[in-house]
Amino acid sequence: MVRGRISRLSVRDVRFPTSLGGHGSDAMVSAHTDPDYSAAYVVIETDAEDGIKGCGITFTLGKGTEVVVCAVNALAHHVLNKDLKDIVGDFRGFYRQLTSDGQLRWIGPEKGVVHLATAAVLNAVWDLWAKQEGKPVWKLLVDMDPRTLVSCIDFRYITDVLTEEDALEILQKGQVGKKEREKQMLAQGYPAYTTSCAWLGYSDDTLKQLCAQALKDGWTRFKVKVGADLQDDVRRCQIIRDMIGLEKTLMMDANQRWDVPEAVEWMSKLAKFKPLWIEEPTSPDDILGHATISKCHNRVIFKQLLQAKALQFLQIDSCRLGSVNENLSVLLMAKKFEIPVCPHAGGVGLCELVQHLIIFDYISVSASLENRMCEYVDHLHEHFKYPVMIQRASYMPPKDPGYSTEMKEESVKKHQYPDGEVWKKLLAAQEN
Amino acid sequence: MVRGRISRLSVRDVRFPTSLGGHGSDAMVSAHTDPDYSAAYVVIETDAEDGIKGCGITFTLGKGTEVVVCAVNALAHHVLNKDLKDIVGDFRGFYRQLTSDGQLRWIGPEKGVVHLATAAVLNAVWDLWAKQEGKPVWKLLVDMDPRTLVSCIDFRYITDVLTEEDALEILQKGQVGKKEREKQMLAQGYPAYTTSCAWLGYSDDTLKQLCAQALKDGWTRFKVKVGADLQDDVRRCQIIRDMIGLEKTLMMDANQRWDVPEAVEWMSKLAKFKPLWIEEPTSPDDILGHATISKCHNRVIFKQLLQAKALQFLQIDSCRLGSVNENLSVLLMAKKFEIPVCPHAGGVGLCELVQHLIIFDYISVSASLENRMCEYVDHLHEHFKYPVMIQRASYMPPKDPGYSTEMKEESVKKHQYPDGEVWKKLLAAQEN
Repeated sequence: MVRGRISRLSVRDVRFPTSLGGHGSDAMVSAHTDPDYSAAYVVIETDAEDGIKGCGITFTLGKGTEVVVCAVNALAHHVLNKDLKDIVGDFRGFYRQLTSDGQLRWIGPEKGVVHLATAAVLNAVWDLWAKQEGKPVWKLLVDMDPRTLVSCIDFRYITDVLTEEDALEILQKGQVGKKEREKQMLAQGYPAYTTSCAWLGYSDDTLKQLCAQALKDGWTRFKVKVGADLQDDVRRCQIIRDMIGLEKTLMMDANQRWDVPEAVEWMSKLAKFKPLWIEEPTSPDDILGHATISKCHNRVIFKQLLQAKALQFLQIDSCRLGSVNENLSVLLMAKKFEIPVCPHAGGVGLCELVQHLIIFDYISVSASLENRMCEYVDHLHEHFKYPVMIQRASYMPPKDPGYSTEMKEESVKKHQYPDGEVWKKLLAAQEN
Repeated sequence: MVRGRISRLSVRDVRFPTSLGGHGSDAMVSAHTDPDYSAAYVVIETDAEDGIKGCGITFTLGKGTEVVVCAVNALAHHVLNKDLKDIVGDFRGFYRQLTSDGQLRWIGPEKGVVHLATAAVLNAVWDLWAKQEGKPVWKLLVDMDPRTLVSCIDFRYITDVLTEEDALEILQKGQVGKKEREKQMLAQGYPAYTTSCAWLGYSDDTLKQLCAQALKDGWTRFKVKVGADLQDDVRRCQIIRDMIGLEKTLMMDANQRWDVPEAVEWMSKLAKFKPLWIEEPTSPDDILGHATISKCHNRVIFKQLLQAKALQFLQIDSCRLGSVNENLSVLLMAKKFEIPVCPHAGGVGLCELVQHLIIFDYISVSASLENRMCEYVDHLHEHFKYPVMIQRASYMPPKDPGYSTEMKEESVKKHQYPDGEVWKKLLAAQEN
């Protein structure tokens, strides 16, 4: 089925001026500049005559997107003029080629800008592959035989915890009951939680209003951003707990705001609000700082958090890790340690992408929904051609072929930085 | 003494075509593309009429330098139009501003491309400051009172191991005997070891010849690159040990080539050559992978390596960490754990810069030379205005004001990528 040679790769800097509304503000960014949710948006084309394009994104916060765009261009020669068949036929080798480029590796490796760029490129490849197969990515993964799945994973630096044989064994066990779980997902969807109510930039009134609406819409799990001001946090957590009651689930996210002793002290003051977890209390590099849940930049960091038993929940990210490939390795390690995966989402497109991974995880790997849920933020979905569908606070499995990464061309054009219509106006207004 | 407002920041992509000669090849890069030693080269100017410029570099391997250049430009607005007095008067605040930019932080934080760019910018600031004070950076640091030194350090994420008070105490103790150690440095220099003899790309004959010459020049400490092929490593280590004898010091560097089990097995085969250390056996992110010595990307990683007792030697880098500021915090943590610091150097300019840090470390912090030495590679020094001076296998303290970061304008012009004379010729030749 797989066909064509990659004949073109384009990448665009797409920014949404979210800083104007205080959406997406957390403790780290609100202390400085508010974020403009953005993406480096990659489109790859082939010489096949089917007209199918692969679209990939990585999420960014505004400034710096141009740096990621620059890194995507630096990676482009690894993709151009390759047959898609050769790429996915030796996906591990291709992943290794991208992440171990002798010269580019120095400015990573497998972290920060180059890894975000790698994710954008690989996300486009997965989108293209799934579209050619006529399946959404989650279904492509679910239907793939374990050996092929494992051949997509680079085990470098994790074999002390997960070998190829371990991975195969987990995936083979996951075949049992798969059909039923797939049916269940299609009928009920994957449980989600909402972060949309409680950004730091919102007034108490907005907070209350959004919370009331979310309850009406059937949400039972809520996340609140904390960490900028303790008194403020106490007041806001009180408001939310009063509204949602004790039986509903509340999570907290400090977005790397604290040092280790500070985190311990601060959280002792917030413990009475019974958070299920505290997310990113300190530096994402601090394995020994014992995060309860953490977004990490690669599988090596996740491996250690699991080894050190520093995680009670594990938070994958579709754009910070090296696409589906690296996320597969992390899902399998989490299964080995029996740690529930609760993906990070929100931003631009993170919900669209990560739903594929978590639905696959349930059907083929974890086979459990206990203590599991996927973040949801009701934001910017209108710019996607195949936006997420939420029903009864659950992600309904996408049915369109691909990775749900494709943006509407009109949205991209309008929001290109700095020459799109939206930015031209904003920048002109700033100058006046 | 400090004066002027930063009126201009320029950054250039400077590459040396070292891949043509096989210099600088290690296990990671030789498997792929050979490196072209390169730098993002930053120059800042002020409106003071002294004509003094601050020069800063960060080291890269060729491709990707343009990505770092792009990131420097993204940081430039934090520097431009600031008074140098205000920057160095609250250097901790300025460091925090650069590393915690609300939007740019996402594409790091404090790692990879943005951190390399931060280092280049801050290195230029330190060069400017020292030049205005008429002192080399090491002397500026040695003469600085402990409170001011500490005010340059961002303690975020490390206070569980090193507080401001701890740092002050260490520095105050370091005052004892400082004058004598400074004299000693000026007379004898800081012990160095050489990596120039044993790159992977060299033939056995070249290896022997370089080794013989190094012995003649008085070198007593040697590092060999390993990790690509075990039989090859055994043969090369045998050659070197045969030439240098058992009483001289040999170190090995695997440049992140192995998984943890592989590292253990491989090194058991090389143990008979009695290496003092094995450098970067596995991923630099793998704290629990127990490296003996490791180059790390920020103070948070170093902190954990010290906490986990995973390091027996600690390897700072003048361009991967956030300049003098972050290196200060790492030197102080190393002192607290009594782990010897043996800096990483080589590349372009790394020797020039890091000598300032290690000489300061000896005079004001560690007060010991036991098990301590600084890497030296005899390479590309001719492009610097104030090149390192090695005498009797020791770094002689530089006397020119600044951070030894300034490159010869002619060299920069010639090697600018892709428009400098050297690259124009090479690229034209490639096309034919």
